[in-house]
Amino acid sequence: MNISVIGATGYSGAELMRILSGHPNTKVVHAVSKSFAGKKMSEIYPSFLGCDYPLEPLDIPAICADSDIVFTCLPHGTSSEVVPQLLDGGVKVIDLSGDFRYNDAAVYEKWYNTKHGAAHLLNQSVYGLTELYRDKIKHAGLVGNSGCYTTSSILALAPLLRSGLIDTGSIIIDAKSGVTGAGRSEKLPLIFCEVDENFKAYGVASHRHTSEIEQELSIAAGSEITLSFTPHLLPIKRGILTTIYASTTASKAQIDKAYDIYSNEPFVHITNTLPEIKHVIGSNNCAIGFKLDERTGRIIIISCIDNLIKGAGGQAVQNMNTMCGYSESEGLNNIGWYL
Amino acid sequence: MNISVIGATGYSGAELMRILSGHPNTKVVHAVSKSFAGKKMSEIYPSFLGCDYPLEPLDIPAICADSDIVFTCLPHGTSSEVVPQLLDGGVKVIDLSGDFRYNDAAVYEKWYNTKHGAAHLLNQSVYGLTELYRDKIKHAGLVGNSGCYTTSSILALAPLLRSGLIDTGSIIIDAKSGVTGAGRSEKLPLIFCEVDENFKAYGVASHRHTSEIEQELSIAAGSEITLSFTPHLLPIKRGILTTIYASTTASKAQIDKAYDIYSNEPFVHITNTLPEIKHVIGSNNCAIGFKLDERTGRIIIISCIDNLIKGAGGQAVQNMNTMCGYSESEGLNNIGWYL
Amino acid sequence: MNISVIGATGYSGAELMRILSGHPNTKVVHAVSKSFAGKKMSEIYPSFLGCDYPLEPLDIPAICADSDIVFTCLPHGTSSEVVPQLLDGGVKVIDLSGDFRYNDAAVYEKWYNTKHGAAHLLNQSVYGLTELYRDKIKHAGLVGNSGCYTTSSILALAPLLRSGLIDTGSIIIDAKSGVTGAGRSEKLPLIFCEVDENFKAYGVASHRHTSEIEQELSIAAGSEITLSFTPHLLPIKRGILTTIYASTTASKAQIDKAYDIYSNEPFVHITNTLPEIKHVIGSNNCAIGFKLDERTGRIIIISCIDNLIKGAGGQAVQNMNTMCGYSESEGLNNIGWYL
Amino acid sequence: MNISVIGATGYSGAELMRILSGHPNTKVVHAVSKSFAGKKMSEIYPSFLGCDYPLEPLDIPAICADSDIVFTCLPHGTSSEVVPQLLDGGVKVIDLSGDFRYNDAAVYEKWYNTKHGAAHLLNQSVYGLTELYRDKIKHAGLVGNSGCYTTSSILALAPLLRSGLIDTGSIIIDAKSGVTGAGRSEKLPLIFCEVDENFKAYGVASHRHTSEIEQELSIAAGSEITLSFTPHLLPIKRGILTTIYASTTASKAQIDKAYDIYSNEPFVHITNTLPEIKHVIGSNNCAIGFKLDERTGRIIIISCIDNLIKGAGGQAVQNMNTMCGYSESEGLNNIGWYL
Repeated sequence: MNISVIGATGYSGAELMRILSGHPNTKVVHAVSKSFAGKKMSEIYPSFLGCDYPLEPLDIPAICADSDIVFTCLPHGTSSEVVPQLLDGGVKVIDLSGDFRYNDAAVYEKWYNTKHGAAHLLNQSVYGLTELYRDKIKHAGLVGNSGCYTTSSILALAPLLRSGLIDTGSIIIDAKSGVTGAGRSEKLPLIFCEVDENFKAYGVASHRHTSEIEQELSIAAGSEITLSFTPHLLPIKRGILTTIYASTTASKAQIDKAYDIYSNEPFVHITNTLPEIKHVIGSNNCAIGFKLDERTGRIIIISCIDNLIKGAGGQAVQNMNTMCGYSESEGLNNIGWYL
Repeated sequence: MNISVIGATGYSGAELMRILSGHPNTKVVHAVSKSFAGKKMSEIYPSFLGCDYPLEPLDIPAICADSDIVFTCLPHGTSSEVVPQLLDGGVKVIDLSGDFRYNDAAVYEKWYNTKHGAAHLLNQSVYGLTELYRDKIKHAGLVGNSGCYTTSSILALAPLLRSGLIDTGSIIIDAKSGVTGAGRSEKLPLIFCEVDENFKAYGVASHRHTSEIEQELSIAAGSEITLSFTPHLLPIKRGILTTIYASTTASKAQIDKAYDIYSNEPFVHITNTLPEIKHVIGSNNCAIGFKLDERTGRIIIISCIDNLIKGAGGQAVQNMNTMCGYSESEGLNNIGWYL
Repeated sequence: MNISVIGATGYSGAELMRILSGHPNTKVVHAVSKSFAGKKMSEIYPSFLGCDYPLEPLDIPAICADSDIVFTCLPHGTSSEVVPQLLDGGVKVIDLSGDFRYNDAAVYEKWYNTKHGAAHLLNQSVYGLTELYRDKIKHAGLVGNSGCYTTSSILALAPLLRSGLIDTGSIIIDAKSGVTGAGRSEKLPLIFCEVDENFKAYGVASHRHTSEIEQELSIAAGSEITLSFTPHLLPIKRGILTTIYASTTASKAQIDKAYDIYSNEPFVHITNTLPEIKHVIGSNNCAIGFKLDERTGRIIIISCIDNLIKGAGGQAVQNMNTMCGYSESEGLNNIGWYL
Repeated sequence: MNISVIGATGYSGAELMRILSGHPNTKVVHAVSKSFAGKKMSEIYPSFLGCDYPLEPLDIPAICADSDIVFTCLPHGTSSEVVPQLLDGGVKVIDLSGDFRYNDAAVYEKWYNTKHGAAHLLNQSVYGLTELYRDKIKHAGLVGNSGCYTTSSILALAPLLRSGLIDTGSIIIDAKSGVTGAGRSEKLPLIFCEVDENFKAYGVASHRHTSEIEQELSIAAGSEITLSFTPHLLPIKRGILTTIYASTTASKAQIDKAYDIYSNEPFVHITNTLPEIKHVIGSNNCAIGFKLDERTGRIIIISCIDNLIKGAGGQAVQNMNTMCGYSESEGLNNIGWYL
């Protein structure tokens, strides 16, 4: 399978390149970087010194001629400019921005505060969370790869909402992410001495991922859901841990049964003890544990992923595997790094 | 003022020793360490190399003879053995364990899962959060210094509950602490390679501080409060950030007015932008910010302290200053380290 | 190839298990853990939740019956008790301790301050640094896998000493390692709050790896070498950066030529810019850069490896590949994680 | 004493402001920030929320009219533009840049690769390392505050060179610094995900501090010294640990005797065990330990400081205390934070 990656030198793009390099069925034929075209990948990420790629400027006709699947790792807004041209060129696209995750352009435009550049494609794009949309992804030409916070939240809550086990008005998602989630960008709040030994909330009551989570959980519940979502910045590189609160009268057995939907999933694990970020880092896993609190009538769910893998590049490759008929875990690590 | 510190070589004790060394009105006459008696403080904490103390075994008569105030930095259960003897010896005591924070021994015994060793003292001990109990602390002989998670939670919520502004059944406290909160202890989950680049929840729906927070917030509300409290372990040394959710119909003006109670407090700051852990580290400050979310009808409050200072040694010195008639901020830093 | 790992739950053992799990030609038939026999690997390292192993007590006859190659990840001293029995049982052994790295038991006994338990095997064991002893390793029955600090030091210096380009009396090795190098052990100096935001030297003028480096560099130079080696502890999990100083009158061209010996090596990379730890983490690479300082007549060499991979488990698998006739990089990552 | 700080919002400036705020004899009358004039200090560093300052544009006449002493925390090159005007205005100046540390403008111009803007002042500026130039500093009108790497290096080596105990041609300084040393600047190599879990050398054989160290050590030795200096970047905020190698035939007693020069110094401590960065962080201390290695005929010295305190703002206040006749440790912490 010939692959191109547009936006190969952001953190998500670079991680995707790393994963693809170890995939037995893919060959990266074009690695595109606007900022670093003409250089080699190893000049930007010296970790590629043993397995290098030339970085090219964006040449859509060449990409379309040579590629079966194209991954777009671009800022939102830019994706919706580039993706239509790629589709017109006859390739399949997996887009890692927020541009093609929405069913309703109005929701996107409200939360992203910008006009959608390719709203006509939203009815054909598939939401790229394999566990929820596997059958549609198999036949998709355009996948809007699910976001990082959203993946950890939706996988944890969708089964309970589908089974009607929690109070739909009571959901609070308190999420914590490593700094790679902010991308490779030279901003003061991201420099080491501002982040190290610090912790903060951001985007309180206004983060875009709120709308993406609400969209998917509303579908799961079959009714409109409004919820609280609070992201925080952890002084670590990778990983998301999401703490979720919801009112429930369900028993442990009922919750377990709802989660049985994941029993054959290669990457979603319901754990007896509560998962930690280091349990999943380096893998495409999502680990989910929960505790029922009788005192308060709430369930507390902990969900962990590696934001760069299950929350970006790994999820994208899982979608690609699904689209191509490969084993879903081809080229993806089941065992995390731990250290 | 002659001071003794019992338990000078745990993290809380050592931090208290550091603060006391810079206090213009105090002299540490006995620094007691069970584990390291006979050594010098600088052998255990080389940061004391410019200002050292001999470490002594526990000699209660000597301590009582020489001291005006004694700080006990002992494990819960041990404090209730030692403190009665100190009181009998005629000294005032500020205890940093959980033993003397409760009004009802039964609550303590349920959450700490142990018999209280000095329940008869609970009716004379004062809860050691200066901002709430200043007048009682002035005349107290025994202060149960408030806990770390609890301080950040109670200071944020008490004014709103006193003013009846939030739904008392809706409170969720999602708290994140640095590792010093776990003390200086050689446990596998605390070694560097297990904590670094990791993040986890612990004590979910069962942490002891839940009961301490519920006690004080019930008093503030004038009605019994049951709430969710979830502590998490941050891969940093110091600091607590607490994210609090509650349903409310109050306006920003009403919330602001409730918080006016702190307008003359030297250490509690209501901030316009949301506080971060690094804003308070190294200081005795508690910084509180909030956001009203009309979509969900909730207030989200962020409260930050340095767990070793406002959550332990600094709070203890603030209480001591109050008991001794010193300026409340004597010997305490108003400016955090930031770096 | 059937593999057993003895000592599967230390950090080196667990990393080796992780690497072997991704190796296309190996099957781990026995994972032995003294401390955790009867449990599953995922109970000790939840990162194995997608690919688990039962942990067994040590049963040498069963291991010898079932295995082609056995990796021993045991403390020094313990290895020399177990390895002879394995060899007697007819299996090949790759030992990750210091026990079988020495040509002269007296040197081992002086630096490790203990009697060698199997000195008679030293003349048949091969020093396990593939780049230096590839031909011997191919036919070896017992490999003493090279150490972490030593690998980074020897790979950097051996070519220059073979070519006679540096003053043999002038070598100073200032090395810095991540904390995994100290193993998974519950010691006070290893707990998070003692390591985080700290940095220290240790084992100054007395670290055991000095003798291992001196042995191999003396062989490379053809004369006895005595050198200064100072290890330091970095507040990171993985990685070693070694800064090496030596007096030289060689030109850049001469140095480059000496390093040409690595031009076909899959894992040793001479870089134009100086390497950093994050360039190699997660890979089996050793990256080496240097600068000639005319002012002082010295060469400064920077050498980086991942101590758990090229300095332990990855090196061990590279040796195994060599012994088994597989491609040397089978199952080993050429691209580091960077993030 | 009325103080002004020019460049109050860089890391060195902010730390100096923090220290001055706790000094009993000083009042900051002008806090100057080019970038943030018109804002309050707490808007830039919210740690100042309990003790704020207005930030002003540079107004040299006003500063000269109101101030006794001015601290300039400006980039090199900028200092030499501003300082002459301040001196003309009749105030004393302590400059924290490299501009006034040199005796010979040619050396400065070679290593800083720029023309010196006020070379005529070099013969009246005093090198601002109190321990070496106390008497001159007492009467100085212009002090070139010593640099961070240089302070840790010079304090460790000067006594041995004055006593002629080490081979002057053999000195190698391998130094490691926290990231605050690079200042508050939005550069890609300084963002969290590039620094965290990483370690690297930089400025190898070319760092400016080499020349400053050589200048002062040549004076101490009474002969021209050329040495190797290699700085490295630690993934921590504060602190410098310097590992120094030199050939020597001196005995431990001789070394101890040379270091006796520091026996009455409040901030320099010769320690029996080797110091670590966390032993000095938060204090104005320099801790120095050493080991003689008979095998190699070398002394290995470990020297630690807090780069923002003894290596910048604390040193500056120590110099100010000396100039003003205050106790040298007034307003300066002897006890580090440790945690």
